[in-house]
Amino acid sequence: MRDDTPNSWESRADSYSLYGFTDLPSIHERGAVIVTHGKGPYVYDVHGRSYLDGNSGLWNMVAGFDHPGLAEAAKAQYDRFPGYHAFFGRMSDQTVMLSEKLVEVSPFDRGRVFYTNSGSEANDTMVKMLWFLAGAEGHPQRRKIITRINSYHGVTAVSASMTGKPYNSVFGLPLPGFIHVGCPHYWRFGKDGESEAQFTERMARELEATIITEGPDTIAGFFAEPVMGAGGVIPPSAGYFQAVQKVLKKYGIPLIADEVICGFGRTGNTWGCQTYDFVPDAIISSKNITAGYFPMGAVILGPDLADRLQDASEAIEEFPHGFTASGHPVGCAVALKAIDVVMNEGLAENVRTLTPHFEAGLARLAENPNIGEWRGKGLMGALEAVKDKATKTPFDGKLSVSERIANTCTDHGLICRPLGQAIVLCPPFICTKDHLDEMFDKLEKALKKVFAEVA
Amino acid sequence: MRDDTPNSWESRADSYSLYGFTDLPSIHERGAVIVTHGKGPYVYDVHGRSYLDGNSGLWNMVAGFDHPGLAEAAKAQYDRFPGYHAFFGRMSDQTVMLSEKLVEVSPFDRGRVFYTNSGSEANDTMVKMLWFLAGAEGHPQRRKIITRINSYHGVTAVSASMTGKPYNSVFGLPLPGFIHVGCPHYWRFGKDGESEAQFTERMARELEATIITEGPDTIAGFFAEPVMGAGGVIPPSAGYFQAVQKVLKKYGIPLIADEVICGFGRTGNTWGCQTYDFVPDAIISSKNITAGYFPMGAVILGPDLADRLQDASEAIEEFPHGFTASGHPVGCAVALKAIDVVMNEGLAENVRTLTPHFEAGLARLAENPNIGEWRGKGLMGALEAVKDKATKTPFDGKLSVSERIANTCTDHGLICRPLGQAIVLCPPFICTKDHLDEMFDKLEKALKKVFAEVA
Repeated sequence: MRDDTPNSWESRADSYSLYGFTDLPSIHERGAVIVTHGKGPYVYDVHGRSYLDGNSGLWNMVAGFDHPGLAEAAKAQYDRFPGYHAFFGRMSDQTVMLSEKLVEVSPFDRGRVFYTNSGSEANDTMVKMLWFLAGAEGHPQRRKIITRINSYHGVTAVSASMTGKPYNSVFGLPLPGFIHVGCPHYWRFGKDGESEAQFTERMARELEATIITEGPDTIAGFFAEPVMGAGGVIPPSAGYFQAVQKVLKKYGIPLIADEVICGFGRTGNTWGCQTYDFVPDAIISSKNITAGYFPMGAVILGPDLADRLQDASEAIEEFPHGFTASGHPVGCAVALKAIDVVMNEGLAENVRTLTPHFEAGLARLAENPNIGEWRGKGLMGALEAVKDKATKTPFDGKLSVSERIANTCTDHGLICRPLGQAIVLCPPFICTKDHLDEMFDKLEKALKKVFAEVA
Repeated sequence: MRDDTPNSWESRADSYSLYGFTDLPSIHERGAVIVTHGKGPYVYDVHGRSYLDGNSGLWNMVAGFDHPGLAEAAKAQYDRFPGYHAFFGRMSDQTVMLSEKLVEVSPFDRGRVFYTNSGSEANDTMVKMLWFLAGAEGHPQRRKIITRINSYHGVTAVSASMTGKPYNSVFGLPLPGFIHVGCPHYWRFGKDGESEAQFTERMARELEATIITEGPDTIAGFFAEPVMGAGGVIPPSAGYFQAVQKVLKKYGIPLIADEVICGFGRTGNTWGCQTYDFVPDAIISSKNITAGYFPMGAVILGPDLADRLQDASEAIEEFPHGFTASGHPVGCAVALKAIDVVMNEGLAENVRTLTPHFEAGLARLAENPNIGEWRGKGLMGALEAVKDKATKTPFDGKLSVSERIANTCTDHGLICRPLGQAIVLCPPFICTKDHLDEMFDKLEKALKKVFAEVA
């Protein structure tokens, strides 16, 4: 399959890349897929093959791969002012406008914005902010961070420590003081005979027990994705955030919503916290904030944290933190346009319109005897492969079932993502019903083929 | 001076920003400078004032603020393919080409490239790579990182822990296991009667003593900027890297060159390590790699680390690390053009041409009785303010001498950077001798004014 001539794209990629998050046996057998351009929700490789990207790039290319308005916004800003920083009290006009816009569309009536280049940096920054407050407010021991098993918060050493996935052990992570509590996935972790409401209460009780064991005054913050993304699209059990927030408020622990994936429309509302009806103390944003057209992350601080951080900074005359490209003028111009495109040019609306059709497609495929459950919210969904549906027993990990399904899909021009033993779908917001049908048809064929081989 | 009407740019910036690396008393008094566009080495604010940016943005806008070739490269790529990732064995053609180019222009005869969005992420990634190797190669205790006092490596929790600046204590940093050895600034830290060669030998001896005290098999790596940048433009003492590398080799400790500032031309060669005649085990690149036109960082691994990391990844079938915008196609297209512009369109050549004029200007200003020394390499330089030149006694910190000099320069249309009690200059590579003369003339007036007030 792969072109192994010395100057092939596959050989060049192999020679110079340390591939990240890539199954190396698949690469050796199949070769890298080198992509040159896109059209709507499709991308095209160097061999002229096309792929419907059911993954929106990495959740983020929600306006597709050739949105004229977004390209135009970037190009106009490159002509106007192609780069600057936000240090020393200088910043671009685009940066000021975007901060104003982000607070306006946030769930907060006022707040402050700090820019980074990625969700990883934004989570890492939020941890530093909480550590800064801990020292400034006379509680230097208040440094522990609580997240959940299966959560994903990034790949810097600290945001990887927050991430509740086992692979981080190869780096000797998590660092001390990063605590992972239970994953609110009722289908997988609910006990026999336990109702969903009872499961939710147990999650909250276990969180409280952890807080008490660790010492409430040692906890700096609790971070959670409204729907877990890279954990395998896991919506919370019913009432989860209400139950958890009650515990956190009791102990004065900030709740940070990691909206890197959910934010700007993915769950059908601007924010995932709106979909699940809670107001966090701060929001971590990235990905859709520029529809993938520019690297950007943002910490959006609600009123309480904004005031406390401003006070702590005034006391030492400076907040000594910032990235070179924080608030880059092109990124800010792109984000202003992307927010407008998602919120006002029909994309968020299309998510809501397509959701029933998306859910129906997932439900139809979940009738397969080797699909344990479908789950999702808005335009993010997952199908969980199982060896035995009744007992929810997974396949032997050595079979690499989800990788085989994803590779089979790739062979048929569909990109979807294997996560654990689930197949994750998160199509661009510009999709039509026909695109979704093409996605489900191709995935269904792949499921049949692979399950026939392994089941 | 500041416009305090409710809808002024200054008020809007104040209302929605948590300012980073910004002197807050200056902001309250003067207001933020909101920048709208640029021309050559000048930027313009919302009030129509122009500023010669002696700081190249943040060292990075080396081709100025309206380079047509760079804007064109970005715009063409936005039309071709405006965004993708480099996970799962997929990546853009631009990404493959840039990796090939980076290895080609590196000091290595072969190697592998890993992309990030910033220098912070690249340093953080390199630390994770070293921790990954430690575990994979059976030395899980090999986790300590050595850097130098006054070094700057970024602001993620880990890269801030590497940074040897006192302000990170407000975050409760450095994390355990990040060790800062001496700063090779002979003028400041040389002892009475100690020659520069003796000073260098002492630096190497002290490094070896630290390695032995900590335990050689607990050290994962040593990171160093060829010329310290945000520490205040500190070139190493003569022979420093040769002496240090000899010690590191003795104990099998990798030497990582943080070339975020020096890389791509700043010191007169492509890499700072070429200027100081050593070959590191890996290079951290950012900033000039895109001339500031796009957020990007890169880890460029030399042959030994590339092979060991590839082997360690093969053993677990994956290197589980990567950022959403790692290898972004627009960033890669911009970097390909920026490298070409710097190396082949006369910018690096212009650095070499201008350097004698730049050094002469620094030397002339250093005749001021309140300038203790000038220092620099290529187009990066610093003037160190002192209360007493003979004793090298600094001014009382409460006088904020360097901030006052920088603010006075801003009032006269010159941006330069206060760092400790030094004024740092790092003009864009497109400057002419006239630009440098304008810079030195304005700075000289500011020095006279402020020193008359405080000396």
